[in-house]
Amino acid sequence: MDPLPSWTDGFAKAAILDFVSRATREGSSDFIPVPERIAVFDNDGTLWVEQPLLVQLYFALDRLTAFARRDPALRERQPYKAFLERDFKTIAGFSRREAFEFVYTTHAGFTTKEFAEVAASWLADARHPTLNRLFTECVYQPQLELLDFLRSRGFKPFVVTGGGIEFVRCIAEKLYGIPPEQVVGSSNKTRLESGPGGPALFKLPELRSFDDRDEKVVNIELHIGRRPRLAFGNSDGDLRMLQYTSGGHGARLCLLLHHDDAQREFAYDREFRLSPLDEALRMAPASGFVVVSIKSDWKTVFA
Amino acid sequence: MDPLPSWTDGFAKAAILDFVSRATREGSSDFIPVPERIAVFDNDGTLWVEQPLLVQLYFALDRLTAFARRDPALRERQPYKAFLERDFKTIAGFSRREAFEFVYTTHAGFTTKEFAEVAASWLADARHPTLNRLFTECVYQPQLELLDFLRSRGFKPFVVTGGGIEFVRCIAEKLYGIPPEQVVGSSNKTRLESGPGGPALFKLPELRSFDDRDEKVVNIELHIGRRPRLAFGNSDGDLRMLQYTSGGHGARLCLLLHHDDAQREFAYDREFRLSPLDEALRMAPASGFVVVSIKSDWKTVFA
Repeated sequence: MDPLPSWTDGFAKAAILDFVSRATREGSSDFIPVPERIAVFDNDGTLWVEQPLLVQLYFALDRLTAFARRDPALRERQPYKAFLERDFKTIAGFSRREAFEFVYTTHAGFTTKEFAEVAASWLADARHPTLNRLFTECVYQPQLELLDFLRSRGFKPFVVTGGGIEFVRCIAEKLYGIPPEQVVGSSNKTRLESGPGGPALFKLPELRSFDDRDEKVVNIELHIGRRPRLAFGNSDGDLRMLQYTSGGHGARLCLLLHHDDAQREFAYDREFRLSPLDEALRMAPASGFVVVSIKSDWKTVFA
Repeated sequence: MDPLPSWTDGFAKAAILDFVSRATREGSSDFIPVPERIAVFDNDGTLWVEQPLLVQLYFALDRLTAFARRDPALRERQPYKAFLERDFKTIAGFSRREAFEFVYTTHAGFTTKEFAEVAASWLADARHPTLNRLFTECVYQPQLELLDFLRSRGFKPFVVTGGGIEFVRCIAEKLYGIPPEQVVGSSNKTRLESGPGGPALFKLPELRSFDDRDEKVVNIELHIGRRPRLAFGNSDGDLRMLQYTSGGHGARLCLLLHHDDAQREFAYDREFRLSPLDEALRMAPASGFVVVSIKSDWKTVFA
């Protein structure tokens, strides 16, 4: 039975099947012991959609709208003004870091438990603006098959995301089958305080880690403590993670998703300022990264 | 068959067996779904010996001796002087944080990979000063049985240690069967740099997190993302972790190891300044923490 039915028979699919076969064949020089079968996946644009804006930005926007009802002065201050006015041209001009700092600010003040409840409740019925489906249905079917296939072969998949760790944990278990302890992401600092229900962690409006570029590698080491054997990303923010993955000994596979299907999803790369794909794409051939084309490598995009 | 043969039949053992039985009995109001069966264990003094000094301090001492050969001026500066002269009275007067900061300083300058190699090589033949065995043989047999028993019932054990995350990862897989991604600990900041073998992480002489007291809870949330159901510690540094664990709904078990066996191991609690057991012991009865006495609850101490 084909473990990857939504993948077109082609170079990318063959590279995946070949890698997994070598990695799991006992006696092969490429054999990887089960505990070392660590696979890391970026989230936005790799496991689910990130256009026209990152899903978490829509969430932050709705949070901000609620805040502005209590504090109307926010309507006159950037970056809040642009977000409140849905001024997407200005928003698209923010750097990835600026956008995320805005996100973290709007996420502070909750306990981690409250935050997870608010986010889960928002995700339950928030819809993508153009794809005519819930955000939680904007997950890529071929990637779900790949995750299942890897797990069936003893791999342990982690999400390593620039998105907020608590936000992504709200979806990772249900949508990807990835438990919270296998989600690595950006995070606010937190502080332990005692409340009526015992000690609770409060999210502070201060960034602990922006899990992007070099920091993805730093956090992989902090959370996982092993160099991954497979990495899948879709932007320059994932380049270091792919280089780090490919830099070790033994069998390794790095993949780069290229959004080139305006018909079924979106077509973009270097011009998406929040998360460009430029340098990584240019380096792919010499680095041995397998470029996966949504248009030609995926029969189905969404479930 | 008794899953805990090194445990004396008594209150502590009965509490463990009862908790696991309730937590895994489907239909029981205390049933815990498998993904939520998270157990956290302190390391020093809980899984292996921490007297007369923390094992990692002996390692740091040997590192420092090597440094002092290249830089003799260290012999005149505190805290290095005390460590180099094996002035244990002065060392015992350092606070836990001071001692750990000394440790991190001596651990910097390596890549994480080099550090793991140096530490593993040291651990291969470093011996405990009085127990007449390797440090790696100073692991508590009853705890190994408990870890195996919990795993066999679907629990996922994590080490949550004040010790350095990379140092403890060197022993956790081999000694406890706990993989690196299930070790949470103190850590230096790291920086990604490109070297001859591709990108590598360098340990900086700057603390990222001292995983003690409140910070244990902060890091449990960061790394695990779920409130544990079982926590086992042995000092006031573990108190917040135990309180956080016991604070949630449903079945929970918190245990506190009391070193009261000078014959077979060591007898100490509040007077061990590096890691005192005082407040947690006083709070145990009212908090429902089960106090485990090495003297009366363990038939065997070491394997």
